[in-house]
Amino acid sequence: MPAALLQADKSFQIQDTESIAPAEGQVRLEVAFCGVCGTDLHIFKGHMDRRVAFPEVIGHEASATVAEVGPGVTSVEPGDAVVVRPLDACGDCAACRKGFGHVCTNLNFIGIDSPGAFQGSWTVPAGLVHELPGGLDLKMAAFVEPLAVACHDVRMAGLRAGEAAVVLGGGPIGMLIAMVARATGAEVILSEVNPKRLELARTLGVAGVNPVSEDVPAFVKEHNGGELADVVFEVSGAAPAIAQMTHLACVRGRVVVVAIVPEPAKVDLFQVFWKELKIIGTRVYEPQDYDRAIAMLADGSIDPSPLVTGEYPLTRVDEAFDSLSNSPDHMKILIDCRG
Amino acid sequence: MPAALLQADKSFQIQDTESIAPAEGQVRLEVAFCGVCGTDLHIFKGHMDRRVAFPEVIGHEASATVAEVGPGVTSVEPGDAVVVRPLDACGDCAACRKGFGHVCTNLNFIGIDSPGAFQGSWTVPAGLVHELPGGLDLKMAAFVEPLAVACHDVRMAGLRAGEAAVVLGGGPIGMLIAMVARATGAEVILSEVNPKRLELARTLGVAGVNPVSEDVPAFVKEHNGGELADVVFEVSGAAPAIAQMTHLACVRGRVVVVAIVPEPAKVDLFQVFWKELKIIGTRVYEPQDYDRAIAMLADGSIDPSPLVTGEYPLTRVDEAFDSLSNSPDHMKILIDCRG
Ligand SMILES: [Zn+2]
Ligand SMILES: [Zn+2]
Ligand SMILES: [Zn+2]
Ligand SMILES: [Zn+2]
Repeated sequence: MPAALLQADKSFQIQDTESIAPAEGQVRLEVAFCGVCGTDLHIFKGHMDRRVAFPEVIGHEASATVAEVGPGVTSVEPGDAVVVRPLDACGDCAACRKGFGHVCTNLNFIGIDSPGAFQGSWTVPAGLVHELPGGLDLKMAAFVEPLAVACHDVRMAGLRAGEAAVVLGGGPIGMLIAMVARATGAEVILSEVNPKRLELARTLGVAGVNPVSEDVPAFVKEHNGGELADVVFEVSGAAPAIAQMTHLACVRGRVVVVAIVPEPAKVDLFQVFWKELKIIGTRVYEPQDYDRAIAMLADGSIDPSPLVTGEYPLTRVDEAFDSLSNSPDHMKILIDCRG
Repeated sequence: MPAALLQADKSFQIQDTESIAPAEGQVRLEVAFCGVCGTDLHIFKGHMDRRVAFPEVIGHEASATVAEVGPGVTSVEPGDAVVVRPLDACGDCAACRKGFGHVCTNLNFIGIDSPGAFQGSWTVPAGLVHELPGGLDLKMAAFVEPLAVACHDVRMAGLRAGEAAVVLGGGPIGMLIAMVARATGAEVILSEVNPKRLELARTLGVAGVNPVSEDVPAFVKEHNGGELADVVFEVSGAAPAIAQMTHLACVRGRVVVVAIVPEPAKVDLFQVFWKELKIIGTRVYEPQDYDRAIAMLADGSIDPSPLVTGEYPLTRVDEAFDSLSNSPDHMKILIDCRG
């Protein structure tokens, strides 16, 4: 089966590899589609060289069909359509013992710390596999992983129908958060500098504001009956957005930190105190977020197809990464990993 | 009745003033004791000149006895021992409509925005008066207001028995938070630079660490079975403590911002994301926090008497403020406002 091996020099080499027979508690999948994540691009650009052992097969936003099951596996059977929740927790650290395996101290993030889905055949722990309902398109199912991130963020925010939400940053995760927030019954505003992304948001029922040319707090109040937002999602990681985030939330509002902000950043804590805000950190997803993401795709409450801006076969994965690197207008590129 | 009027030049002038007969829905109190708050000191130093209209009677940490009740008041009667929750909310703003009158947009903070308790006779809205149980010493009852701040902070943190808490900053509010956290059944560590305050904390059953000379995260782990804290209270407002606060909390830990931090400050948001922390802003108190503070003093679970470092009659309130300004070892000075 073909596999795209990312080399230390950041070139992809397509090799024909032996498929790995599933051991006890494992399943072997035939990968259908796998989306390219911002994290994959970080790995490709060399930002995560201390964590990734090259050559490595990356990719973690996959849909697949079960090919074989290992001894003792009864949860799925060959032919089942599935997705993989790529978080292999140790089960033993303080986070795991508290039931938060998704932020396990010794987490094996499959596709980063161990081989991922940019290959035809992929062997993974059966416990991380979620079966898909009949009729759910495998191409759309490649969105389950990033959509589960959005579902986790919205759930951690406690966002309710009728509330107002502002999303700062309109990349794929910001856009999916906006879509999940809309589907939850919230009014949603996206603050984003890229006009193409703002235009896409508008077609999804999300009001758009450009923070470079417009007054975001005034825009929020104008669109929300004079009040600030109940929930702010900071997805951009940009210093001006981080400085502004606490100014956009109403009394007892929630500010969700979705972006990875590597360096300490200036936050207006006076706003946090004055309005009794909560700043909530969120990372990846828990099993129930996968369940909701699958359900939302299956019942049509989320249609991610407008986010697909490119599709490449596995043999041309290098072109996909080059294109994503070079165009800020891309949202999601899917890799077709079928043989 | 004597009143201490703070002048625009920041001198106190003791005047004999007419007592104000209570109007409908008001009560007239004879003030017993009133503590000097950090906020009072800020006003005295001129930091709040834009908010305070001089000459003004300040002071808001008072115990008192009801002298007269206005028409329609049935909740208390003359002779009752009481304290005043000095937050007079508008009832009409977005915060009030949501039930968060304590952070009302148009809040009248009695003792800052309108006349306070450094006087013999004080007329206030009856709805803000909490009756004290029999036998509760009026001197100790002057601690209800700052203790209610601590009860609010601990409640907003969701601190539970058996959890570990770190308090950054050991002034009166930090010390009261440490005491309430102890009484809640938590293990408590105080990080504080002043050795006298650390020593006081130790006598209260609170482990002390000096952040200038010791490694606070290592100290926390050592005292908590290798784990970081469930809850961190940032009470110091100091930049190094704010930079450190997210490093002291465990996975899904809560960081409570109690200090007023006037300028945007650097916060390590990577820690917030990585460990899914919550940063929780807290301000003053709600009625139930007053109820708990009164109950804790009445049943002896909190004894604030070790925090009293000075006591002055109303006629010498200026000496009290001078002493508090000049000695970092002070905790709480009480003013005896009885005739
Ligand atoms: Zn991803
Ligand atoms: Zn673990
Ligand atoms: Zn106070
Ligand atoms: Zn109000």
